[in-house]
Amino acid sequence: MHKDHIRLAVVGATGAVGTEMFRILEQRNFPFASLRAFASERSVGKTIRCKGKAYPIEVATPEVFKDLDIALFSAGSETTKLFRDAAKKGGCLIIDNSSAFRMERDVPLVIPEINGDDIKAHKGLIAVPNCSAIVMLMAVCPISKLSPIKRIVVSTYQAVSGAGAKALAELEEQTQDFVAGKQPVAKVLPHQIAFNLFSHNTAINEAGYNGEEWKLIHESKKILHNDSLAITATCVRVPVMRAHSESVNIEFKDARPTLEHIHKALAEFPGVKVVDDRENNYFPMPLDASGKDDILVGRIRNDISNPKAIDLFVSGDQLRKGAALDAVQIAEYLVKNDLF
Amino acid sequence: MHKDHIRLAVVGATGAVGTEMFRILEQRNFPFASLRAFASERSVGKTIRCKGKAYPIEVATPEVFKDLDIALFSAGSETTKLFRDAAKKGGCLIIDNSSAFRMERDVPLVIPEINGDDIKAHKGLIAVPNCSAIVMLMAVCPISKLSPIKRIVVSTYQAVSGAGAKALAELEEQTQDFVAGKQPVAKVLPHQIAFNLFSHNTAINEAGYNGEEWKLIHESKKILHNDSLAITATCVRVPVMRAHSESVNIEFKDARPTLEHIHKALAEFPGVKVVDDRENNYFPMPLDASGKDDILVGRIRNDISNPKAIDLFVSGDQLRKGAALDAVQIAEYLVKNDLF
Repeated sequence: MHKDHIRLAVVGATGAVGTEMFRILEQRNFPFASLRAFASERSVGKTIRCKGKAYPIEVATPEVFKDLDIALFSAGSETTKLFRDAAKKGGCLIIDNSSAFRMERDVPLVIPEINGDDIKAHKGLIAVPNCSAIVMLMAVCPISKLSPIKRIVVSTYQAVSGAGAKALAELEEQTQDFVAGKQPVAKVLPHQIAFNLFSHNTAINEAGYNGEEWKLIHESKKILHNDSLAITATCVRVPVMRAHSESVNIEFKDARPTLEHIHKALAEFPGVKVVDDRENNYFPMPLDASGKDDILVGRIRNDISNPKAIDLFVSGDQLRKGAALDAVQIAEYLVKNDLF
Repeated sequence: MHKDHIRLAVVGATGAVGTEMFRILEQRNFPFASLRAFASERSVGKTIRCKGKAYPIEVATPEVFKDLDIALFSAGSETTKLFRDAAKKGGCLIIDNSSAFRMERDVPLVIPEINGDDIKAHKGLIAVPNCSAIVMLMAVCPISKLSPIKRIVVSTYQAVSGAGAKALAELEEQTQDFVAGKQPVAKVLPHQIAFNLFSHNTAINEAGYNGEEWKLIHESKKILHNDSLAITATCVRVPVMRAHSESVNIEFKDARPTLEHIHKALAEFPGVKVVDDRENNYFPMPLDASGKDDILVGRIRNDISNPKAIDLFVSGDQLRKGAALDAVQIAEYLVKNDLF
């Protein structure tokens, strides 16, 4: 299909990731012939702007997909499950931000800079990985090419907007309550998030890991095509509005690469920016990563506890590269390679 | 000396840790015959209350120590260095919260629950460890008794009050600015802390570690009497007012203990509370740890990346057990064992 004829849609247009998608489609001047915005019933009547035009919010039905070529889904697992067959039947390709199908064998799970070529084997649905996995792997991938990685120990500092627009509003509300001398109330998130932090509130499985940690661990193996990669993760929600940060310890199978080689590999990797100014104590911060496309990597140092390991710290906007940008990049890859 | 005759002083009485000391002396009904409160010139005229009495703030001079038995120092390294000799000459024992002398061979570095008996060898100065070290070791020590530990990978989530009362005020100010729609300004801390986080702002050494990480690593070895313990640490400041949290990965030399044994050892250890409710997703949070004496430990699970390792998450009030309480407990140990 010629790229000027792409009939595009965003499903979940009013959410934290959905609104970011419209921004990114405009900023990157994504070529579409038409664009439709789908959300739930209660958003009908609203519009959302892109490239100078206002798009009315519509409610998706199975029928809409026969008039679409690509649909960027970001409305939760249930919505993707609901429309997957209809989209396939209608000939509309889904790029899905939900976790519903990420681990299915015939679903490419893609960070274009890392495993873009996996897109070629798609069967109508391509999944965008978990945001914490994307933020971590953008730093891990270029390093893994220098020397094979044996094990990763990662602890996350995850922004509230990762839990959605309502959670973000709750942090703001709790903050206002605090300033007004009122007791902050938790309604969306399970605990007060203002001036607090807590273990990611996805369910704990039998192994003792929560859902977010499990995704980070298993999606990383799939994306890197490396089932033997050992990963342990601790995922924590922090009172930051936007951009996830992660403290990452990387142990290599053999000798660790030199810090010079690591710096070079990161600096040359598209979508990564090295922020590692030891003298001025300036390193990746979520405030600097917010609204940016690049994943910031710093605190790169030899681990004194293990001669084969290094430590580093990453911050990346989980709504952009961790979700919406990754989805749009997948769409760009499809267009560039005539893959739909 | 009979415990009813202790002439006590707090040096640095108006700081974040100092004010907490007065609170703890009262709560624990520490036996003192007299109490004096020292701070800098600009606090003169103020008073601080303890056990129903108001103590005027005085400025310390070398002469005051000859009339004192124990001085709890929390006024920074320079102040302890300034008065160490005068205190020794005056026969006044120093319990020091600063890092000035912690690593000196003849200075006991003490968490009473862990290495209280080290106090017996004191030469007039006993050091309180770094707050992050205390919070971590309260969880690590009981576990290390089950099976020797080989390596620890720790990432911290450190509260702003750890940087002092002014930093805490800055977080509040920046929060008010945010709510008022104004751009928050960083004056005390190097970067905006409201809705942000950053690598601990102590200087980075040649190995690439910052001062806080270096203290955590080396003080832990001294406290546990284990020079071969391998530790790597990443210390991060988060927008939490009070109580440090830490994500800790512990690798054993041999087989890891069972989770049941670990739970039991932690539950039986004084000063530790296990908060590990997987079903209700309830784990240690700084808000729960704030103002409490116990170090909260949870997320205790087998590390799926390493059959000899476990993961856990800790929250503890760094102003109480991480500083002021530890100092008062050391004083209590001295009193109980007639050690001054």
